[in-house]
Amino acid sequence: MTTDAEVPELDALYREFAQQGLVPLWTEIGDLMPHQPASPAVPHLWRWSSILPMAEQAGRLVPMGRGGERRALALANPGLGGRPFATPTLWAAIQYLNPAENAPVHRHTQNAFRFIVEGEGVWTVVNGDPVAMRRGDFLPQAGWNWHGHHNASDRPMAWIDGLDIPFQHYAGSTFFEFGPDDVGTRESPSRSRSERLWGHPGLRPVTQVTPSPATPLLAYRWEHTDRALRDQLALESEGAAGTVEPGHAAVRYTNPTTGGDVMPTIRTEFHRLAPDTTTRPVRETGSSVYQVFEGTGEVSVGTHTWTVTRGDLFVVPSWQALSLSTDRGLDLFRFGDAPIFERLGQHRVEHLEDH
Amino acid sequence: MTTDAEVPELDALYREFAQQGLVPLWTEIGDLMPHQPASPAVPHLWRWSSILPMAEQAGRLVPMGRGGERRALALANPGLGGRPFATPTLWAAIQYLNPAENAPVHRHTQNAFRFIVEGEGVWTVVNGDPVAMRRGDFLPQAGWNWHGHHNASDRPMAWIDGLDIPFQHYAGSTFFEFGPDDVGTRESPSRSRSERLWGHPGLRPVTQVTPSPATPLLAYRWEHTDRALRDQLALESEGAAGTVEPGHAAVRYTNPTTGGDVMPTIRTEFHRLAPDTTTRPVRETGSSVYQVFEGTGEVSVGTHTWTVTRGDLFVVPSWQALSLSTDRGLDLFRFGDAPIFERLGQHRVEHLEDH
Amino acid sequence: MTTDAEVPELDALYREFAQQGLVPLWTEIGDLMPHQPASPAVPHLWRWSSILPMAEQAGRLVPMGRGGERRALALANPGLGGRPFATPTLWAAIQYLNPAENAPVHRHTQNAFRFIVEGEGVWTVVNGDPVAMRRGDFLPQAGWNWHGHHNASDRPMAWIDGLDIPFQHYAGSTFFEFGPDDVGTRESPSRSRSERLWGHPGLRPVTQVTPSPATPLLAYRWEHTDRALRDQLALESEGAAGTVEPGHAAVRYTNPTTGGDVMPTIRTEFHRLAPDTTTRPVRETGSSVYQVFEGTGEVSVGTHTWTVTRGDLFVVPSWQALSLSTDRGLDLFRFGDAPIFERLGQHRVEHLEDH
Amino acid sequence: MTTDAEVPELDALYREFAQQGLVPLWTEIGDLMPHQPASPAVPHLWRWSSILPMAEQAGRLVPMGRGGERRALALANPGLGGRPFATPTLWAAIQYLNPAENAPVHRHTQNAFRFIVEGEGVWTVVNGDPVAMRRGDFLPQAGWNWHGHHNASDRPMAWIDGLDIPFQHYAGSTFFEFGPDDVGTRESPSRSRSERLWGHPGLRPVTQVTPSPATPLLAYRWEHTDRALRDQLALESEGAAGTVEPGHAAVRYTNPTTGGDVMPTIRTEFHRLAPDTTTRPVRETGSSVYQVFEGTGEVSVGTHTWTVTRGDLFVVPSWQALSLSTDRGLDLFRFGDAPIFERLGQHRVEHLEDH
Repeated sequence: MTTDAEVPELDALYREFAQQGLVPLWTEIGDLMPHQPASPAVPHLWRWSSILPMAEQAGRLVPMGRGGERRALALANPGLGGRPFATPTLWAAIQYLNPAENAPVHRHTQNAFRFIVEGEGVWTVVNGDPVAMRRGDFLPQAGWNWHGHHNASDRPMAWIDGLDIPFQHYAGSTFFEFGPDDVGTRESPSRSRSERLWGHPGLRPVTQVTPSPATPLLAYRWEHTDRALRDQLALESEGAAGTVEPGHAAVRYTNPTTGGDVMPTIRTEFHRLAPDTTTRPVRETGSSVYQVFEGTGEVSVGTHTWTVTRGDLFVVPSWQALSLSTDRGLDLFRFGDAPIFERLGQHRVEHLEDH
Repeated sequence: MTTDAEVPELDALYREFAQQGLVPLWTEIGDLMPHQPASPAVPHLWRWSSILPMAEQAGRLVPMGRGGERRALALANPGLGGRPFATPTLWAAIQYLNPAENAPVHRHTQNAFRFIVEGEGVWTVVNGDPVAMRRGDFLPQAGWNWHGHHNASDRPMAWIDGLDIPFQHYAGSTFFEFGPDDVGTRESPSRSRSERLWGHPGLRPVTQVTPSPATPLLAYRWEHTDRALRDQLALESEGAAGTVEPGHAAVRYTNPTTGGDVMPTIRTEFHRLAPDTTTRPVRETGSSVYQVFEGTGEVSVGTHTWTVTRGDLFVVPSWQALSLSTDRGLDLFRFGDAPIFERLGQHRVEHLEDH
Repeated sequence: MTTDAEVPELDALYREFAQQGLVPLWTEIGDLMPHQPASPAVPHLWRWSSILPMAEQAGRLVPMGRGGERRALALANPGLGGRPFATPTLWAAIQYLNPAENAPVHRHTQNAFRFIVEGEGVWTVVNGDPVAMRRGDFLPQAGWNWHGHHNASDRPMAWIDGLDIPFQHYAGSTFFEFGPDDVGTRESPSRSRSERLWGHPGLRPVTQVTPSPATPLLAYRWEHTDRALRDQLALESEGAAGTVEPGHAAVRYTNPTTGGDVMPTIRTEFHRLAPDTTTRPVRETGSSVYQVFEGTGEVSVGTHTWTVTRGDLFVVPSWQALSLSTDRGLDLFRFGDAPIFERLGQHRVEHLEDH
Repeated sequence: MTTDAEVPELDALYREFAQQGLVPLWTEIGDLMPHQPASPAVPHLWRWSSILPMAEQAGRLVPMGRGGERRALALANPGLGGRPFATPTLWAAIQYLNPAENAPVHRHTQNAFRFIVEGEGVWTVVNGDPVAMRRGDFLPQAGWNWHGHHNASDRPMAWIDGLDIPFQHYAGSTFFEFGPDDVGTRESPSRSRSERLWGHPGLRPVTQVTPSPATPLLAYRWEHTDRALRDQLALESEGAAGTVEPGHAAVRYTNPTTGGDVMPTIRTEFHRLAPDTTTRPVRETGSSVYQVFEGTGEVSVGTHTWTVTRGDLFVVPSWQALSLSTDRGLDLFRFGDAPIFERLGQHRVEHLEDH
């Protein structure tokens, strides 16, 4: 124990620490090394009915073009100091493109994707390959590929962008380059070239037989996702294995060259709860963002509970327990940072007792 | 140099070697360590029009059941001493099942598959999951899974089995167990449970997210294979990448949990030549068996050349050059042992000049 | 372009964004997505001659024990807001243990190591295995292993701790548990059990033949590091390959079960510059901390230049160019976060022209 | 069942099969698909006291040079038809080099190694790097590296070569090239360049940080092997883990770039039994060759039992149980083909009850 006589000396020592650019562990350890994860991010819900009008207003008032690059509104987690970070690692934004508008071409090291909860008419052009965007589709956009968008329809379109911007900002690994101001094509094919090469179950082109770090398949269509989920629930009803837990079907989007996650830092999944289903609470290291695709239900994250409906977005911070419940059925898109934790040996999952 | 005086002594030494169980390298090196691969297997062709009647006759005369297990006729490469080996590593056989017949359940460490060049009506039941067999389908059957077949139709059916029997026989790694005499189900669903879980492009069930050594997908349907090949040729005609070489489309069947080959020892592919296509000669270490699925063409393997048509099977031994040519189009199923060579660091491929 | 008339409406929209927890990309993109990495961390130097006396004073004034756990002073990068973070991902601290003192047992998910620039007499006890600490030794301490220390000598000892505390704090992946207050042994063997099992070049015990995520070897002794570096420089002088560049020898500490980095998040290396050597400037994504082990030299990081000597520590932030120069020879220990970047596909290295 | 009336028809059918190059499965299945591995190779012992004099005689009578390449006498397993195959996959030979003799340079795809049970004085020169050969040393020689030998001493030297010649001969993957007739150097350094780069425990040169398919370390010295084994037995005597079973120490030679086997097809280990030790019987798929390095003991392989002493070589075929026993201690070098079986998913090990 420090004696009274030592107090002045100790005070001086602490001042000296600060001057020398030193910080003692013993005063910081509780914050730095908690007994379990204590993320500053908080559980939070954004209503689609609130954010979509904001995007529409921005569509009228804010021009689109070089420099600003995208008309995107990012979810800012209230625990993260006003930064446009849904979680410490993840960016989630609503993006909006007016009829005939064009989002200029660029590329960046950030991994990205789009998920479409409603609407259609925009094509994202990736390395020259135009990829249609329609309700229920998931479009991965791995780092360092050239991409822009064009709206080929006479209606505006809004969708969700997910990226690892906060993580790469934190890590200091971001590179960014401008491409042409115009996407250079107004083609609007129903299937992209990538789907024609890679969209056949269990088959790969013999021209590309080595693993690639991110998926070469640029669109995962709703018809396949929906069918896979229906198949799981049907298998369950026949007494066969397939669902995660009773009434809970789920698929993970994968890189067909490895069977692993679509991108090195981002995991994406689609979950379907049959009517009258409640999931067992689970918590894991790492954070996720969910968007309700269809249906309604109750969501419980840590000590928060919300009733959610189509388009609503919510955040599950690290080590906060999540449970979902629905009377009439609930479809959810999910993305998270689990690959970071798995690849670095920091992934833990705990299934809790029912509450 | 050995002197005349030494000859008797040398003769005695060689006799002593034999007695002691020793063999000198210097007399064997030419055979053992040739300057390039010199397989005893020879290029060879089996006509479907010849082997199918044999199978039909066996169908009338040879009963099916426990002990014999399968009514299968194996291709015996003329260079391999009358053994039922298509190549040193690969077994290829025509199997035949009469109406209402049942092939008893067993399992073995050998990796296997079925490919169907014509007919339908048989279900192979893998660990209780009935899998339909129809023209153009590829059905992998990885080692150590219980399986039997039943013919649910009123017509006999013949198909091709491929296995790594010769390799495992050579290596001394074979285990085999009998299961029930009857497959235990006469269900005949259009889609197997495995397809309902795994047959969705780029999606995997969240219940099974770790790699498995062999594919969990038990049927690769013709409609997908055909569409993938048509897509590749269409992309080529649009000026986009996709085909192996002009007019030559090809897909590899893959394990969706890894993106790699369907089984640890066997690679399977489907090749399509557009009309008026000739492929560039290529040779590689390891051997392959091809079956013509549709069309006609000229096949050149080493110094052999054949005109081939539907159902014909031919063998490409290690390091023999293969070239294919067709006027009106040619569809080919291929299986080979390339995974053995790749996993052991012995795979070489050489593209030769056009002949 | 926004018209004057629209300005009030736009202002209202921005206020509404803030209320709804939204942030526009177009005002943030310059900071969030810079054209190349722009880490808030700055190049910085801590003098051993300044920090060692601080540690000694703490040794007199600050008790050691449960709760505070360790008498450690962390380097606080001036760009990181006073937090005890050497870089965004890395913790570097000087730890100090008085004669006969004991640092209590705990375990945590953070990966750690110790490097000893001078002194000896302390044993770190890892899962019951006492590991001697001596000048030049590197002692990895992978996450979730029980460990404590005891000073078996009659002199205090100081050394450097490196951990991924900032990264795991950021990611929200930290778990921490207390063990016994006392390390439970005062054994002081010259070689640990881990070294007796794993410290033989190219050999592993047949009892442990599967890869482990972190190295099972708990001490990398100076005699081996020094000899490896002398060998590289001798090979260079004989005209053989071995050094990174002329006069620049370097070894990486590896996990003998994989050949990869010792821990999932931390890379460690030792670099030796022969007299009259200047290294070519290089920059890479990710950050490093260096400690001078012996010799003197000039260090240039970005626009900073320092003359360094034994014990001095400096930081190289992401994408800042580093060059080293010495007249009389320079030995440097280095640790960094490169495995994070490599495993997540974000690693880039650029060799610059000589300045 | 076949009726009497059908017998002639069936006979005709079998003749037709043979003509058409077909073999029925049902007559062959017992041999081809046994219920457990049934290797044609048999357990066998070669006495060093018998084969060394043969090699010495060959040293007097058989010249060394281009074409014959090596004065090597291969062990021919009595079950393998007089071929120079110790097992279906492995070549084991005694090689002999007279004073001042030179074995010409060549390279081949076969993986090889040398193990030295007695003597010294020869250097094997691998890609220009002269590697000393001394009692107890293990020298891997991965495929497709140039190599020759020279005897720098005034005494002949004999040693053991192991290769995967039978496997590559079977697989048809052999390539072979002549290099210069003379090794081109008579240097005789105590340590090779490869050891100076790679022979430091847990350290790798920063110049070579990617995995290589085979070990870059060209000599594993007896002093390290011996020390590792002594350490394991000492740990056991202290009550710590380390030995395979009581009194049985064992190390595996590994590739420091991966932690895995030294070569893609060959596993090598060194086993030491303390006095009064009997090992528990074990059988596994794949085959091994053992050479007694020191001591005496009883060896039981399947139904064979031999008393063995220094230099004796014996073979363990696939799935034959092995047990070792010694009164005064026994040191054994072992090599086998386990990597083939592991990489192809065919490895099984079974520990049997004590006999």
